[in-house]
Amino acid sequence: MYGLIEELYPICRSITGDGLRSTLRRIQQEIPIEIREVPTGTPVFDWTVPREWNIRDAYIKNAAGERVVDFRRSNLHVVNYSVPIRGRMPLAELKPHLHTLPDRPDWIPYRTSYYKEAWGFCLSQRQLDALPDGEYEVMIDSSLEDGNLSYGEYLLPGEYRDEILISCHSCHPSLCNDNLSGIAVAVHLARELADQPHRYSYRFLFIPGTIGAITWLSLNEDAIARIKHGLVLAGVGDPGRFCYKKSRRGDAEIDRAAIHVLEKSAHPFEIAEFSPYGYDERQYCSPGINLPVGRFSRTPHGTFPEYHTSADNLDFVRPEALAQSFAICRKILGLLENNQTYQNQNPKCEPQLGKRGLYRAIGGQADAGAREMAMLWVLNLSYGNHSLLDIAERSKLDFDAIEFAARTLRDHELLKECKQAAA
Amino acid sequence: MYGLIEELYPICRSITGDGLRSTLRRIQQEIPIEIREVPTGTPVFDWTVPREWNIRDAYIKNAAGERVVDFRRSNLHVVNYSVPIRGRMPLAELKPHLHTLPDRPDWIPYRTSYYKEAWGFCLSQRQLDALPDGEYEVMIDSSLEDGNLSYGEYLLPGEYRDEILISCHSCHPSLCNDNLSGIAVAVHLARELADQPHRYSYRFLFIPGTIGAITWLSLNEDAIARIKHGLVLAGVGDPGRFCYKKSRRGDAEIDRAAIHVLEKSAHPFEIAEFSPYGYDERQYCSPGINLPVGRFSRTPHGTFPEYHTSADNLDFVRPEALAQSFAICRKILGLLENNQTYQNQNPKCEPQLGKRGLYRAIGGQADAGAREMAMLWVLNLSYGNHSLLDIAERSKLDFDAIEFAARTLRDHELLKECKQAAA
Amino acid sequence: MYGLIEELYPICRSITGDGLRSTLRRIQQEIPIEIREVPTGTPVFDWTVPREWNIRDAYIKNAAGERVVDFRRSNLHVVNYSVPIRGRMPLAELKPHLHTLPDRPDWIPYRTSYYKEAWGFCLSQRQLDALPDGEYEVMIDSSLEDGNLSYGEYLLPGEYRDEILISCHSCHPSLCNDNLSGIAVAVHLARELADQPHRYSYRFLFIPGTIGAITWLSLNEDAIARIKHGLVLAGVGDPGRFCYKKSRRGDAEIDRAAIHVLEKSAHPFEIAEFSPYGYDERQYCSPGINLPVGRFSRTPHGTFPEYHTSADNLDFVRPEALAQSFAICRKILGLLENNQTYQNQNPKCEPQLGKRGLYRAIGGQADAGAREMAMLWVLNLSYGNHSLLDIAERSKLDFDAIEFAARTLRDHELLKECKQAAA
Repeated sequence: MYGLIEELYPICRSITGDGLRSTLRRIQQEIPIEIREVPTGTPVFDWTVPREWNIRDAYIKNAAGERVVDFRRSNLHVVNYSVPIRGRMPLAELKPHLHTLPDRPDWIPYRTSYYKEAWGFCLSQRQLDALPDGEYEVMIDSSLEDGNLSYGEYLLPGEYRDEILISCHSCHPSLCNDNLSGIAVAVHLARELADQPHRYSYRFLFIPGTIGAITWLSLNEDAIARIKHGLVLAGVGDPGRFCYKKSRRGDAEIDRAAIHVLEKSAHPFEIAEFSPYGYDERQYCSPGINLPVGRFSRTPHGTFPEYHTSADNLDFVRPEALAQSFAICRKILGLLENNQTYQNQNPKCEPQLGKRGLYRAIGGQADAGAREMAMLWVLNLSYGNHSLLDIAERSKLDFDAIEFAARTLRDHELLKECKQAAA
Repeated sequence: MYGLIEELYPICRSITGDGLRSTLRRIQQEIPIEIREVPTGTPVFDWTVPREWNIRDAYIKNAAGERVVDFRRSNLHVVNYSVPIRGRMPLAELKPHLHTLPDRPDWIPYRTSYYKEAWGFCLSQRQLDALPDGEYEVMIDSSLEDGNLSYGEYLLPGEYRDEILISCHSCHPSLCNDNLSGIAVAVHLARELADQPHRYSYRFLFIPGTIGAITWLSLNEDAIARIKHGLVLAGVGDPGRFCYKKSRRGDAEIDRAAIHVLEKSAHPFEIAEFSPYGYDERQYCSPGINLPVGRFSRTPHGTFPEYHTSADNLDFVRPEALAQSFAICRKILGLLENNQTYQNQNPKCEPQLGKRGLYRAIGGQADAGAREMAMLWVLNLSYGNHSLLDIAERSKLDFDAIEFAARTLRDHELLKECKQAAA
Repeated sequence: MYGLIEELYPICRSITGDGLRSTLRRIQQEIPIEIREVPTGTPVFDWTVPREWNIRDAYIKNAAGERVVDFRRSNLHVVNYSVPIRGRMPLAELKPHLHTLPDRPDWIPYRTSYYKEAWGFCLSQRQLDALPDGEYEVMIDSSLEDGNLSYGEYLLPGEYRDEILISCHSCHPSLCNDNLSGIAVAVHLARELADQPHRYSYRFLFIPGTIGAITWLSLNEDAIARIKHGLVLAGVGDPGRFCYKKSRRGDAEIDRAAIHVLEKSAHPFEIAEFSPYGYDERQYCSPGINLPVGRFSRTPHGTFPEYHTSADNLDFVRPEALAQSFAICRKILGLLENNQTYQNQNPKCEPQLGKRGLYRAIGGQADAGAREMAMLWVLNLSYGNHSLLDIAERSKLDFDAIEFAARTLRDHELLKECKQAAA
């Protein structure tokens, strides 16, 4: 995963354009995504697909002709979606177009102007402070023209037509945690799931933030009802504690699954209530869409200083943090896969587990074993529509133990699987 | 408000009689209340309007003919509703008719005997201790005769026929916080509301405690269903922290509005669960009436030592405390007035706020502004019948911010007001 | 109660056999239980009534012919349900059949092998350590033959056909708290209830654990629906704090009654959530039975070191602990008996309590009396189907005070009892 991030890091992505397109092509080498192109001007709900932005070079040159701000050194130096400009101006006139972070004088901020025609440069405060008054040459060799919005989509079919959505924004330029980390974990999940039996179908989206989600939802309204659970993956590569942000519903199965897995993990974590600000859960959880989509992150966006700066770089993201994030996601999806509902075939009193070899022969000890407790809980609650997650939650036992007990009991014909209504 | 209290303080009010009547006439100089007169003997639910009580003078004279207890010095000296008496008796015979507060030796208690024919005097413990044995002359020049129960009523019509009830008891003699403070704040609210546009109709009641509320409810059963929210105002002039006591329902809109306003205020406060003891919320929240009426007070009755004593005087009530109480009530009523429900006109994904000038043009900052957050919350939840108060509660934002955002969005045709069903 | 425990203590009980039978006969001297005999082989749900076990003698003799382990000294020395054995063997061969408690070297453990044919001895670790290598003579003079499973049943009819179930397991040999204490309290409850008027019918079961409950439920399916509340009594003689374990439903009337009584008692207590492990609540609360049956204990089974050892003896159980347990059970049953629902006959405003002599005549004091508060709460909530327990819970007043107030109000025709639907 870290290697993929290293390869994608230098590319200047945006919500449209060749940087995004080449990122998708690189992903295509890992998993068979389809790359969709949606033409400029396409109406998507209240929005319109914007013109395509591409950039080749940009700089600010001082009186001596030296590039004092140089796009070739960091693509963050240009305000993303800047219109082309070429001219000379005194520093005073240039300054309103310059963005810095006075509190972090060595870092370059990341700024965008997608929906208002403007241009600008981002630079470190130290760079700005070093600029003497005088004339500067300003050049942005960009284009903003009719073209396409690109996104990647991979539908991995399963036993059910019901889908689990994994979505990550893929529009940020040289920023690692936000969101090359999400892309890397999603790619890795897709590869692993493709190799293993699974019940749900999985839909992976690699889309530009906001406009990409809106575009996909607008063009795929028929598919929305098939999405039973979803995760937005973003910022999963830093070493901070995990953060799961609940869906708008707040008690969806994905919410409960994620909370259960995090509670049973050894990692520190935080559960955040839904709020309408954030990543593309904003769109998936808009009121007329209202999908059960949560967001899985580590340190939430906007709460770490490196967020949206040049410090969100290859040092900030760590391979072991990615691996942990992957493992938690894997467990959440595994839980959803196995969250069956069974019916106790002997609901009147306990069945005699001993004669089936499922209960200790010598009685009198103070405690039931963990395996016996899990079986007793599954038998007691597998009646009247309690899922295995319901049982894990009420019993406070690990889902895996509950699920193992259920399989054992099913193999002894003490449980019967309820038909999956939605399959 | 404090001036009105000063004027009303000396009057000897009771649940009937000329003291109450003159109090209502003084209120009439401020707001156009109608003064109702309900004849003695009128059946009102399980009760009967009592005989009218009036008093002119009362005293206890010692052997030297000096007034040692004198109604002219404080009307609290006479047990309210005392029957007339004129006679001479030794101290031992008099003592069962004397009420004091041994713990507060300088204060005169306030006692009543509305529904049992009796007479008595209230005096300070020091006064009692100073009385030598011997003969005393006792005189209460009162009358208890068929007459009327008086109360004041002011219906301020609004855009809706639905009403908000503001009720305060007006039967206590020279006690300031209980309840000249409630009268003063209610009068001031009525004056202010009359000068401003308002949606609800407002009904102000200035009534004798218990029997007044029962009388009004009994004679106005048809009007009860129009009361959508209500507040009993009592004890709002002391400097203690605020106390809102919930209606019997416990989750009525008035309860939630009062709690929200207090939580967002800078003042200390307490939320009390409903209990069937207290002021006239006892009647409004009786099970067969069950109106959504809460009680707004500062230090609750019975929990401050000055309660029902001569120490509840003009020093105990403070103008700034009255002003704060008024301001909180005003905010609660304002919230009810503005607690509309809107429907998001673009419920699928977020509408594009930027093109309407409602969203910052330059992206990338860590936080959405407060104004943007309020708009996002309103858009996200204005679907499926969430009121603005629902949104304020879930978002934890101030109602005013939510309401401002809603008006902005409505002006941009992104929201539409739901028809007020009950209007 | 303690005397009954002393008499029953020496008997070697099991889930079948003469020890159990003679225990039931001794109970019959106290209360008129019927002793039921269910033949070996009878199918009971998923189980089968086992063969009957009886034992006369058992020992391990050393080379010198001395009984080093002797059933006549403690019936715990034999694994309960051991098949007969007679033979000689070296210590190494004997050891797998010996059970000790290394952590409690002076105590004999209690072990059973009901459903697997096996034999064994239980002894203290010190006894085991003292055994030299060499040959031993082993003898268990038991029989495991077709016979009967015995249990005791006492139905005390009441005004209603609806029943309250009191169940206690009666199969443990020389163990006092587990469960001679439960037997003793149940017997005492039955005697006291028989002497007093009561509305519910009461069914007392003295049954072998697990198989006894399963047998009774299987043979009495028609009677199950009449059981409206139930308690499993076990481990009620130790001096530890009380523990009430909720029924599977968790909010049944018995759960709320037990919690209310414990909260209002002066004793320390714990409320345990339902779990499918424990005593016969496992069967009563199996999903297809799902009776509102809780468990009343003191220190829960398995959490005190004496549990299932020879240290659960006559010293461990204390008369005053039994008396407290009895008193709490008595109060819980009393609450259920009196938990009526009334209808306020004057629901609009408060009725005038004063004219009925139910309210103080002289007003103005800071507090209502406790008796007045209880009446106001009962009047306020006796509308729309709130039971007296509902009212006690909401008012936080003691059920007894609420119930007394309700009777007073009913006697004044202010309340009317709702017909008991299920009676």
